[in-house]
Amino acid sequence: MPLFTLTTISQQKHFAGLQIRVEHESQVLNCTMRFSVFLPPQASADNPVPALYWLTGLTGTDENFSTKSGAQRIAAELGIALVIPDTSPRGAHVPNDDAYDLGQGAGFYLNATEAPWDKNFLMFDYITCELPSLVEQNFPLNNRRAISGHSMGGHGALMIAARLPERFVSVSAFAPIANPIHCPWGQKAFAAYLGNDQERWQQYDSVELLKARGLMLPLLVDTGTADEFLTKQLNTEALIAVAAGLPDARVRYQEGYDHSYYFVSTFMEEHLRFHARYLLA
Amino acid sequence: MPLFTLTTISQQKHFAGLQIRVEHESQVLNCTMRFSVFLPPQASADNPVPALYWLTGLTGTDENFSTKSGAQRIAAELGIALVIPDTSPRGAHVPNDDAYDLGQGAGFYLNATEAPWDKNFLMFDYITCELPSLVEQNFPLNNRRAISGHSMGGHGALMIAARLPERFVSVSAFAPIANPIHCPWGQKAFAAYLGNDQERWQQYDSVELLKARGLMLPLLVDTGTADEFLTKQLNTEALIAVAAGLPDARVRYQEGYDHSYYFVSTFMEEHLRFHARYLLA
Repeated sequence: MPLFTLTTISQQKHFAGLQIRVEHESQVLNCTMRFSVFLPPQASADNPVPALYWLTGLTGTDENFSTKSGAQRIAAELGIALVIPDTSPRGAHVPNDDAYDLGQGAGFYLNATEAPWDKNFLMFDYITCELPSLVEQNFPLNNRRAISGHSMGGHGALMIAARLPERFVSVSAFAPIANPIHCPWGQKAFAAYLGNDQERWQQYDSVELLKARGLMLPLLVDTGTADEFLTKQLNTEALIAVAAGLPDARVRYQEGYDHSYYFVSTFMEEHLRFHARYLLA
Repeated sequence: MPLFTLTTISQQKHFAGLQIRVEHESQVLNCTMRFSVFLPPQASADNPVPALYWLTGLTGTDENFSTKSGAQRIAAELGIALVIPDTSPRGAHVPNDDAYDLGQGAGFYLNATEAPWDKNFLMFDYITCELPSLVEQNFPLNNRRAISGHSMGGHGALMIAARLPERFVSVSAFAPIANPIHCPWGQKAFAAYLGNDQERWQQYDSVELLKARGLMLPLLVDTGTADEFLTKQLNTEALIAVAAGLPDARVRYQEGYDHSYYFVSTFMEEHLRFHARYLLA
C-alpha cells in the first residue's frame, strides 16, 4: 500500500466549494484517521490556495467545526481552504480513558512519551508533518498556512505556532487553554502523556513558550467573559501578560460570550479575515 | 400551574443576540416540549421584532437549525427573531416507532386522528396555536410571522402557509417533501397518523392544497440537484407545476447541492433576506 492513500467518505457542495471528509491509515498515529477539508470554489490544480488549519477542542472531531463554525461561507469568498483534523488517534486498539479529558478525543496536540499512550498519541507530529504532507499532495493547496483552534485546539494552535513559526503566516485562537501546566485539564493530561518531567511540560505550554521564544507571527485571540472555564482552566490573564511583550499580538475579551460554538461562530469571520491578510499577501 | 410557564434550559450570547432554549408542558401535545428562540440584539420590550418560524426535518430537533444553519448571523443583522420548535411530541409515555420516519422525530406537522398517535401527535395545532401564543407572550415579538423549513419541515411550512396564509407574511422551504401523498415517506406517515381517508390526506399535502386554494403569499423554494431524495421523495416537479400558477412563487434547483445543512446553510442568507422584505415592511 502506498504511504499516502486517502479514501473519500463524503463530498458535499457547500457555498459553491466542496466539503470533503476522508479516511487514511496514519503512519504516525498507527490507526485509521478521519479529517475534513473545505476547498473554496477558487481552488484548482492551476490555482492552488492557502489553508487555515483548525484544531478542535476536547471531545470533538472534525465535524464540530465543519458543521457549526460557519467558516466555509467566508473561506469560499476569500479563496482559502480549511484543513480540519480529528482531536486524537482513534480505534478499538488505541488506548483510552473513561474521562472525557484524557485519551481518545483529548490528544492535546503533543507527542506522548509515556505508556500506554506513546504508541499512538503523537498528535504534534501528525499535525505538523503527516497531515500537511497528505493534504498538500492530494488537494490543490499551496504552502501558505495559518493555524487556529478552540479551547484545547487553541492551546494546540498557539503551541505549534510558537514552536514552528516558520511553517505559518499567522495564528489565532478562541478561548485557548493558554497555560496548561497551571490548570487542571493540562496538569492531568501532561502528567499522563509526558510523565513528571517539568521541562517536557514546558515544551507544550503556550505561555511558557511565548515567554521563552517570543513570536514574530501576527496573533489574534478571543475569549468570552461568560466562558464557564475562564477562571479555572484558560489562564487568559497569563496570556495577556506575555502577549504585551510580543510585536503583533491582540488578546481580547468578548463581553458576555461563553465557551460554545455560538461564541466561536460569532467571531469566525473576523478571524478568517485576519488570517487572509497574511495567507493571501 | 399557569398555562404558559417556560423554563429556561440555556441562554447563550450569539452574534450580539441571545440563543435561548426553553422547556414547557404542552397542553396540546400532552408532554414536555423543548424549543429554541433566537432574539436579535434589536429586540426589547419597547421594540418587539418579527419572527421566522423554522420547521426541522425527520429525526431532527430544535438543535439542528440552531447549531448548523448560520441563520443567526443574518437574523441579528436584520432584527428578526427565529422560533425553532422540535419535530414531534417527546417522552417515554409518548408513542413511538423503531423506524426513523414515524413517531418521535417524525411528526409531519399534522394532527393525528388514529390511535395510538392521536393523544400527542397534534403538531399542526402546536405550531399554529400553542407555540405562537407562548412565544409572543414571553418574548419581545410582534405578530408579523414568516415560516420556513427543511425536508419534512419544508412540507410543514408550505402546508401550514397554504392552510393559514393570513397568519404569515411569506413562506419558503429547502428541499420540501412537496407532495407527500405520492411519496413513500408521506404515504407511510399519513396512513399511520390519518388512516385511509384520502380527503384527510389532501388537507396536509402542499401540492394538493396549492392546487385547490392557490397562495397569495410570496414563496421561495430551493432544492439541490444532487439531493439523494429528489426523485423518490420530494416530488419537486409537481411543486414547480403548481407554482407556475401562483402569483409570486419561485421554485429553484441548485446545481450540485445535496439534502444536508451544507446545502441549507449555503442559501440561508438569501431566504432570510427574502423574508425580511415582508417581515420588516
